[in-house]
Amino acid sequence: MANMHEIDTYAKQWIKEAGERIRASFPNTLNIKTKSNPNDLVTNIDQETEQYFIEKIKTTYPDHKILGEEGYGDKLTDLSGVVWIIDPIDGTMNFIHQQRNFAISIGIYEDGVGKIGLIYDVVLDELYHVVKGQGVFVNGEELQILESKSVSESIIALNATWVTENRRLPPELLSPLVKEARGTRSYGSAALEMVYLASGRIDAYITPRLAPWDFAAGIIMIEELGGIATDLRGEALDLLNQSSVFVARPGVHSEIMHRYLKDGRW
Amino acid sequence: MANMHEIDTYAKQWIKEAGERIRASFPNTLNIKTKSNPNDLVTNIDQETEQYFIEKIKTTYPDHKILGEEGYGDKLTDLSGVVWIIDPIDGTMNFIHQQRNFAISIGIYEDGVGKIGLIYDVVLDELYHVVKGQGVFVNGEELQILESKSVSESIIALNATWVTENRRLPPELLSPLVKEARGTRSYGSAALEMVYLASGRIDAYITPRLAPWDFAAGIIMIEELGGIATDLRGEALDLLNQSSVFVARPGVHSEIMHRYLKDGRW
Repeated sequence: MANMHEIDTYAKQWIKEAGERIRASFPNTLNIKTKSNPNDLVTNIDQETEQYFIEKIKTTYPDHKILGEEGYGDKLTDLSGVVWIIDPIDGTMNFIHQQRNFAISIGIYEDGVGKIGLIYDVVLDELYHVVKGQGVFVNGEELQILESKSVSESIIALNATWVTENRRLPPELLSPLVKEARGTRSYGSAALEMVYLASGRIDAYITPRLAPWDFAAGIIMIEELGGIATDLRGEALDLLNQSSVFVARPGVHSEIMHRYLKDGRW
Repeated sequence: MANMHEIDTYAKQWIKEAGERIRASFPNTLNIKTKSNPNDLVTNIDQETEQYFIEKIKTTYPDHKILGEEGYGDKLTDLSGVVWIIDPIDGTMNFIHQQRNFAISIGIYEDGVGKIGLIYDVVLDELYHVVKGQGVFVNGEELQILESKSVSESIIALNATWVTENRRLPPELLSPLVKEARGTRSYGSAALEMVYLASGRIDAYITPRLAPWDFAAGIIMIEELGGIATDLRGEALDLLNQSSVFVARPGVHSEIMHRYLKDGRW
């Protein structure tokens, strides 16, 4: 059994340090943006941040495994042992265009069970943090259990893409939800949309395609608070492959799954 | 001719003070939220904030007129003289549900011409500020002129409502834009969406129904930076009535107006 308390202490230290490095890169980012392809640039910072984590983890815990967006980690076929699932910059388009509304996301799993989750909103300096069974905190302040609600009093994070013609989802499936919910929002970062759900600012987040590093940390927080995390057909999420993702507080999850997602029959 | 420099000094002072009062109300807000109707509550804070501005303005400038969301201002039939157009809390639903992502918006017009605009993101303590002809600043840092871009490299603020069945707009009009833009977002506050455009974080904002207090300040900033502010048919905005609003940087405005909004022929 791994020493999760020690791992957690390191993870918090490293994610804060990585955030500082990203913030320090902003003046360079803005200078370079005007003369080169912004997609190249952010890839460099993505890559540097992932490599920073990998070096720290491999030096301190040579037997841990790493699954990362930029591909510098391990090729995994199972989740045995301790696995760090890392998105060095979640919300890449926001990072390039806005220099805000992105986050570092780290989920730490042991034999497939989510033990520690960290999502760091670098610009706002807000660290969302969960150790399974010990509650979810943002900068030390504990988040409340997610109580049940109805769709009519809910704000849903749902991008307009998924109610117009697209390759992944019949647009007519979720169109009525847009009208019947209290409101919809779209922020462009899965990790931030998950902590917005955890902190009660939105009540559901629905998206037809994410990679494990987009949701690995967030779902540990959401489940810790009594929220529900499945794919769009109500099945368990797959931490080794891409998946649709539907996370919500209780009540809202069952109502959307039944009334709009037809209990997965589409 | 009014002393705009003096008016500006007062406006900045009052908007900061009002923001402080709203921030100070947060612990009460959160306590009361659990036991009463959240819509009642926010109305109180909306109303108190508007009344605070009206008292300040009427005491200092008895001949100025005020157009405000909560209706404590004047009934106006024209824009002669100096008119303050005020939204005490723009993004009411965010204020209730999120305690962030809302703003105070004040536009000051003289004989129908926008002279001063202030949009204050209360939680982030970011004050966007324009005096016509003197540039747009956020917390003292000057914003850049909005250069031309194409839709394919743009982020568009557009709520999912407007590409699904709704009472205001044929959904098929803007659906192709969702697919062809680089991305879409929705933040739920017109004033913040306008300063996001002014600061280059998004490239267009489209919505079929706003009141003058939602856009009065923002359009002064956007036009100061070379952006374009019209309704969805390309006509000038009406500061005395509700209107559709389409604001964008150059290039993006003409491309959307022509290719998606059919030069107003729908």
